[in-house]
Amino acid sequence: MNLRLTLDEIFNLVPEAETEGATPLQEIAGIASLESAQTGDLSFLGNSKYKSFVASTEASVVLLPHDYSGQPNPNQLYLRMKEPSRGLATLCRFLEDRVFPPSPPTVHETAFVDPSAEIGRGVSVGPFCYVGSDVRIGVNSTIGSHCHLGDHAEIGESCKLHPGVKILSRCNIHDRVILNAGVVIGSEGYGFDQVGEVHEKVPHLGKVVIEEDVEIGANTCIDRARFDETRIGTGTKIDNLVQIGHNVKIGKGCLIVAQVGISGSVEFEDYVVVGGQAGFAGHLKVGKGAKIAGQAGITKDVEAGAFLKGNPALPFQLAQRISVLQRKLPELFNRFAENPSPK
Amino acid sequence: MNLRLTLDEIFNLVPEAETEGATPLQEIAGIASLESAQTGDLSFLGNSKYKSFVASTEASVVLLPHDYSGQPNPNQLYLRMKEPSRGLATLCRFLEDRVFPPSPPTVHETAFVDPSAEIGRGVSVGPFCYVGSDVRIGVNSTIGSHCHLGDHAEIGESCKLHPGVKILSRCNIHDRVILNAGVVIGSEGYGFDQVGEVHEKVPHLGKVVIEEDVEIGANTCIDRARFDETRIGTGTKIDNLVQIGHNVKIGKGCLIVAQVGISGSVEFEDYVVVGGQAGFAGHLKVGKGAKIAGQAGITKDVEAGAFLKGNPALPFQLAQRISVLQRKLPELFNRFAENPSPK
Amino acid sequence: MNLRLTLDEIFNLVPEAETEGATPLQEIAGIASLESAQTGDLSFLGNSKYKSFVASTEASVVLLPHDYSGQPNPNQLYLRMKEPSRGLATLCRFLEDRVFPPSPPTVHETAFVDPSAEIGRGVSVGPFCYVGSDVRIGVNSTIGSHCHLGDHAEIGESCKLHPGVKILSRCNIHDRVILNAGVVIGSEGYGFDQVGEVHEKVPHLGKVVIEEDVEIGANTCIDRARFDETRIGTGTKIDNLVQIGHNVKIGKGCLIVAQVGISGSVEFEDYVVVGGQAGFAGHLKVGKGAKIAGQAGITKDVEAGAFLKGNPALPFQLAQRISVLQRKLPELFNRFAENPSPK
Repeated sequence: MNLRLTLDEIFNLVPEAETEGATPLQEIAGIASLESAQTGDLSFLGNSKYKSFVASTEASVVLLPHDYSGQPNPNQLYLRMKEPSRGLATLCRFLEDRVFPPSPPTVHETAFVDPSAEIGRGVSVGPFCYVGSDVRIGVNSTIGSHCHLGDHAEIGESCKLHPGVKILSRCNIHDRVILNAGVVIGSEGYGFDQVGEVHEKVPHLGKVVIEEDVEIGANTCIDRARFDETRIGTGTKIDNLVQIGHNVKIGKGCLIVAQVGISGSVEFEDYVVVGGQAGFAGHLKVGKGAKIAGQAGITKDVEAGAFLKGNPALPFQLAQRISVLQRKLPELFNRFAENPSPK
Repeated sequence: MNLRLTLDEIFNLVPEAETEGATPLQEIAGIASLESAQTGDLSFLGNSKYKSFVASTEASVVLLPHDYSGQPNPNQLYLRMKEPSRGLATLCRFLEDRVFPPSPPTVHETAFVDPSAEIGRGVSVGPFCYVGSDVRIGVNSTIGSHCHLGDHAEIGESCKLHPGVKILSRCNIHDRVILNAGVVIGSEGYGFDQVGEVHEKVPHLGKVVIEEDVEIGANTCIDRARFDETRIGTGTKIDNLVQIGHNVKIGKGCLIVAQVGISGSVEFEDYVVVGGQAGFAGHLKVGKGAKIAGQAGITKDVEAGAFLKGNPALPFQLAQRISVLQRKLPELFNRFAENPSPK
Repeated sequence: MNLRLTLDEIFNLVPEAETEGATPLQEIAGIASLESAQTGDLSFLGNSKYKSFVASTEASVVLLPHDYSGQPNPNQLYLRMKEPSRGLATLCRFLEDRVFPPSPPTVHETAFVDPSAEIGRGVSVGPFCYVGSDVRIGVNSTIGSHCHLGDHAEIGESCKLHPGVKILSRCNIHDRVILNAGVVIGSEGYGFDQVGEVHEKVPHLGKVVIEEDVEIGANTCIDRARFDETRIGTGTKIDNLVQIGHNVKIGKGCLIVAQVGISGSVEFEDYVVVGGQAGFAGHLKVGKGAKIAGQAGITKDVEAGAFLKGNPALPFQLAQRISVLQRKLPELFNRFAENPSPK
């Protein structure tokens, strides 16, 4: 990969860095973790638990916090700063535009845009996109190839839709939202009335609203509401292949890892964190800052700050203790096999 | 959302309604549940367990069963009928055509249709659709944007394919089927012959058949059979992100919730209900009307009418009882820690 | 389905077959398992555990191993060979080209190919494909409809991309790879820096590398690496709706069944087998030939050759034993209810 940066570029991007040691190189060849970095690479101490790897890293340039006590090897440059993670993020954002140059701010010649659509300044509409009637796209947004923006859909400013995203009619995407490839926003909710032996369709007439700074992973699906809206709160980050049912409300700043399933009408307060493959039965409320372990099965309301695991879900420490004891069941049963009627 | 209906429209749509009370409004502004409805909204008592919310609802119009005993508040109109759920469904279907107007019955100028394809009267083929050779599409079906209909695929009458659906070669979709965005019908089955250390591909030459009135959720995948067919029975409703393997046979009227995985050659009889994220090992038979709880792991045949939970799956009541007892394991082990050799 | 083969075609394709008995038919009408085959069909004994079905099969032609001891019924032809599974595979590959004729080796008139892309001889680029700048496609590869090949993507020789596959920028696909419909290669990794209450995006600048002879199921997603690469090893077979996180390394010849989730930076050695819906926490190492049961939750490194089940995962035999004992918990607790203080 081409992750080259000259030392001058680095100094310009993180001007607060204090240097220690020196490298004969004029540019770095790549970025890597402390352990895997080779001569020519830049590395970083983002988390103090990896401190012991700094002394032996082969990286030519290392971003470090001020309080790191070691010294550089020969031909190694330390760049000390308050927050090396932020410094690294700054370098990466600069590189991102090189590795993935922004799409041209035009409508691709193969795209189809309904005349009634309003396309903001600086917007890129990719190849084979369909932009329906009365759609609005805010300034500087990028719509990847093969996207579908249904009638009356609204996309905010500076959004990025990767290829093959489907925004169905009347759904709203606020500013700076990132939708990975294959995301479906506004699929029909899963709801039926039992009439004799027939499951009769319940029309879903509502929409989906995705608030600012949300990111959604590839092939994730979010169903539209029955009457009003399914809503994902500001800054929430959703991973790949997640299912979010109709009428769900997700608060701000939540983290929802891959393959989680959230049934209809569930409500999350802010800052909920859910591990991969966990599932939620319908109509539950999950309190602020609750943490749910991967693969947990949640069938009751969750209190704010709770940390649950397992199915049925239990407080994390209790679940761990029970797991340990289950492993001792063979021993316990053996004892009682020898003592068939304890007295 | 624009879910407005005039009172005249409502009276025309549910002429059996008996009125009680009165509203000064000429039209309703939206539809909402009893709890969330505001002045101007229409609401409904679809399930008697919500009866206590009727008296305090702010809805201006309320659909109620004949036997509801309360009286309307001032400026509130009760509409009593035999089945308020059916009445609501009628209103919603009327609104659906307003909120999501049907696509024009034409082939979009950007679509590609092979000359050998037979397109029925009233069919809408959306933007950037590919319709392969010898495809047949029945009357009044709607094919959304970016759909792929492979060679020899057959689509019945009055079907609705949302954007980005892929129907691969030779698969059959019967009448009135709804496929949500990103559905894949006819992917290759997952089957290999072990030859030394190599997994050699087993070609899958069969097809998928989707019977009448089936609905399938977004990004769900159904694999083609090895020789004959994978088949989904009439009226079965499948949610988003479900995996259905090669040679599976699903009966009529089944409900399969999001993220369920069904391995190859499993057979469901009719009216099976499966909760989200449950999984089935290959070659199992699941009897009529069986119910499988969310996240259950099914590794043996399931009898008709059974209700199973957990992995390994147990009868629901037993699984619940064991869950309760597991929570008491710490206490049990504590007692025996004090009595290391019970006699 | 049209799975017809004349007897002459069969003899040509498996010339090593020794005949016994005879059928009056000139061609077979289809292929089916021993149990479901009817007169006119060809069947096979691929696994000796189905031996008892041979005597009663109605198939007109049966592929059998040399050591099968029975004799054909009247009007039934046995074809004995060393490995009937291989013989069947040969017939099926021949049929495959009839049932699914190869796409024409041209760029479809509706596709868009950047002038800088290099398209090998014999390549088929399907309808509505987008092929970006500096893309390379090796000889004899087939790109289905609605595929996206991002800038600098590289596709090897004799690959097959089904409709709607998205290969994002700079990802590499080696030779003879099969990607089913809706696969996403190179989605953004799920990684954020917590800055106060905000989850700040960590750019993912790396790529995905898919080695030779890999097959990937429909709607599966593989995220790009943070700096270097996510890599899937030669001959690994991945089923539908699988999630593979950023920086994951999968060895050779692994089998990963549907809906498995593999978190960031996990490393599999060769020949790992994972059952459906299993999940892996981040940064784990899984040893060569390990087997993980369906729905298992893996939160620790796994030793080579281990066979684990459950969440928390335990050795398979222990997990089975504990499952049996859990079912006896009600009985155990009942005994102690009668003996509240065992001495």
